[in-house]
Amino acid sequence: MKMSRFLFLLTIVGTFTVSLQAQNALIQKYDSLANLIVREALGSNNAYALLHDLISTASHRLSGSEGEAKAVRWARQTMERLGFDNVRLEPVMVPKWVRGNIEEAILLLPDGKREKLNIAALGGTIATPPNGLTAEVVEVQSFDELKNLGKTAEGKIVFFNRPMDRTLLNTFAAYGGAVNQRGAGAIFAAQAGGVAVLVRSMTTRLDDVPHTGMMGYVDTVRKIPGAAVSTKGAERLSQLVKQGQKVHVQLRLSAQTFPDVESANVVGELRGSEKPEEIIVIGGHLDSWDKGHGAHDDGAGCVHAIEALRILKKLGLQPQRTIRAVMFANEENGLRGGIGYAERERPGEKHIAAIESDQGGFAPRAFGVSDPAYETVAAWAPVFRRIGIDRVQRGGGGADIGPLMRKGVPGMSLIVESHRYFDYHHSDEDTIDKVNERELALGAAALAVLSYMIAQEGL
Amino acid sequence: MKMSRFLFLLTIVGTFTVSLQAQNALIQKYDSLANLIVREALGSNNAYALLHDLISTASHRLSGSEGEAKAVRWARQTMERLGFDNVRLEPVMVPKWVRGNIEEAILLLPDGKREKLNIAALGGTIATPPNGLTAEVVEVQSFDELKNLGKTAEGKIVFFNRPMDRTLLNTFAAYGGAVNQRGAGAIFAAQAGGVAVLVRSMTTRLDDVPHTGMMGYVDTVRKIPGAAVSTKGAERLSQLVKQGQKVHVQLRLSAQTFPDVESANVVGELRGSEKPEEIIVIGGHLDSWDKGHGAHDDGAGCVHAIEALRILKKLGLQPQRTIRAVMFANEENGLRGGIGYAERERPGEKHIAAIESDQGGFAPRAFGVSDPAYETVAAWAPVFRRIGIDRVQRGGGGADIGPLMRKGVPGMSLIVESHRYFDYHHSDEDTIDKVNERELALGAAALAVLSYMIAQEGL
Repeated sequence: MKMSRFLFLLTIVGTFTVSLQAQNALIQKYDSLANLIVREALGSNNAYALLHDLISTASHRLSGSEGEAKAVRWARQTMERLGFDNVRLEPVMVPKWVRGNIEEAILLLPDGKREKLNIAALGGTIATPPNGLTAEVVEVQSFDELKNLGKTAEGKIVFFNRPMDRTLLNTFAAYGGAVNQRGAGAIFAAQAGGVAVLVRSMTTRLDDVPHTGMMGYVDTVRKIPGAAVSTKGAERLSQLVKQGQKVHVQLRLSAQTFPDVESANVVGELRGSEKPEEIIVIGGHLDSWDKGHGAHDDGAGCVHAIEALRILKKLGLQPQRTIRAVMFANEENGLRGGIGYAERERPGEKHIAAIESDQGGFAPRAFGVSDPAYETVAAWAPVFRRIGIDRVQRGGGGADIGPLMRKGVPGMSLIVESHRYFDYHHSDEDTIDKVNERELALGAAALAVLSYMIAQEGL
Repeated sequence: MKMSRFLFLLTIVGTFTVSLQAQNALIQKYDSLANLIVREALGSNNAYALLHDLISTASHRLSGSEGEAKAVRWARQTMERLGFDNVRLEPVMVPKWVRGNIEEAILLLPDGKREKLNIAALGGTIATPPNGLTAEVVEVQSFDELKNLGKTAEGKIVFFNRPMDRTLLNTFAAYGGAVNQRGAGAIFAAQAGGVAVLVRSMTTRLDDVPHTGMMGYVDTVRKIPGAAVSTKGAERLSQLVKQGQKVHVQLRLSAQTFPDVESANVVGELRGSEKPEEIIVIGGHLDSWDKGHGAHDDGAGCVHAIEALRILKKLGLQPQRTIRAVMFANEENGLRGGIGYAERERPGEKHIAAIESDQGGFAPRAFGVSDPAYETVAAWAPVFRRIGIDRVQRGGGGADIGPLMRKGVPGMSLIVESHRYFDYHHSDEDTIDKVNERELALGAAALAVLSYMIAQEGL
């Protein structure tokens, strides 16, 4: 070893020792705060009470609906009642799509028998003709397979049946690998001459519950209606098609799209004592699908943010920088809340971080943190163990804070246990009895700890 | 820095580099195996099918019951069907306690009104007289408080009402802080002159479900009957007592203890190819309480062990050392299985590790590993991330492998998400619908990965 390398090594070791000591002091300080926060979260059980309150007030919160308007009022009143600073609405225009009363799919078998399929109209779909449409079903697993069919799909209902890959550890990865069928299926199907789409529900579970979600159109392609079919329905349909039978489905949907209406992001803060102009956003989205009650998606995320502020306030932990809870509007079918929040002029303000919770009210497992904030937050990992979080992973964000991140704000996600999320997601199963009160409370503790540490230490 | 220290540092750095390379190669090798194991576990969904099969065959598996005998047959037949090596029963004598048809507690209010309390006889309790016993209730939180009451408790029903501390992150710690009331309450109450005990159910949830569990007697103290009361019942009772009312309870229990009967530990193996005499035990307990179906406690642990061997076999991963699945008998009310397993003569065999799964079928979070095995297993942590396990913590074991550990065998525990466990534990709520199929499957994958790595690498 040359002397220069020896000196280099010496410097490294020295620097390492000094920074290690500073780091230990910091960890120790926040360790006990994190403990207090966890005890308040679990002991009060207030997160669950908030979620119950939200859902009792507004169980269906689809953008533009009466329920959504009630939820907006609830969020403002709740944050006012809890004494947050600067509670306000920030108006945005949101789309208004209504499912209507009719969504029905009947399997017509060659022998004349009829079987009901459990379906849910996809968000944004047009209606079928009032008496429905009837066509033969063609099954595909991918857009490529559909293209290769050539004219075979003409005049048919295109049935996208690629399952979520249940062998993946993370269900969000499995979702990511299948959801393009729902999002863009109607576009590709129309290009191939199809008259409607049926899409296998996005869940790893085999059951009879259809899962809705957003589908898209483009102006240049004919619009055709689309619905999700339960996984058991999809298996049944596939079985018949694979037997070589000509299977027809009669589809009726009464969905309608109305002109945009006004809604709002709901905002409340704990104002910073030293640098109030530096903002840490924590939040989720207040809207939900009209199936189930949006308990996990994303009632939980909203409650996490409100409860995080309540806990900090209750414990007298006034932050040096401002922590701002934002209940975003319209994440599910437009993202107008997230876009509106980021586009709004905010003179004198600087956003230093945005933390999103939109994976449900399950047990916290990790924080995902985007660069360049990752290294700083990763060094705080020992504190997070107090909340039951064992991991800080590189890369974070979310739909609602995406527009902020594109303006350079570091994005972070609360990552929770993912196994059960898609059992309930966008379906009638997403109700409060699927939420465990302790797991929900810890999500709030997680947002409280991370946002407070950023507020005190900066990034 | 002196030259000697410099050379020392140099050696450290050199050794570190070499061992780091070896370590990386090892991690890489098992990383891909762990991936295969996870994919087989999640893809086949066989763990859930096994649990369903066990519970359909034998939903109640209390020691000495017909259900337990059925479960023993099921475990042997299942392991034989799956082609495990040396499948066999190892007989042990187990206690036979029977709840009987009557368990009833009526609150007698001063105004003559009667209210039913939801109770469950505690395991091992004697019966009340056939017509029940009626006495005033005295409430305490601890044995010390009871002692300080002096003669106040004489002739009364002692009501132990110290809740599990819900503010603790780990519910097992909360359980540990409250369960002595159930285990030893009847002894202390009898010493204070009490005629019976009611114990607040061991759960952090507020509901109307009583949770049973073992209680103990000692030969030198008069036996009095004991029952668990639901947490809502406990709150109601406490409210009345705190109002200063004289609250009487009429208690009827028809429990009976019979002579011991024969049962068995059920054993099956993947025989080691190189060192078959070196044994790694993986297992859970086959018995359960007679409330609910023992789906989490400990149907899950049994299924984890069987499914772990099935996966290894399916993937053609023959271990160098023997991996032995053991379904222990009688964990709940006697531990005869664990004791019998450890006491049995096994000429030529050497146990090198024992891994227990008895925290339910929730998502795996960590391995707990006792010394001296801890350092070795902790170095494998990167592999465990493939199973969703982020942590290896010092200290491991479990009730069933306790007797083996006292003979010097390193003990390990599969640590899973603990928040929901005591919502169901020892109650009618412990049914298969509370088990998520993915979370259950990953527990099996966890046992497969850890036991296989030990089988190949030693400890």
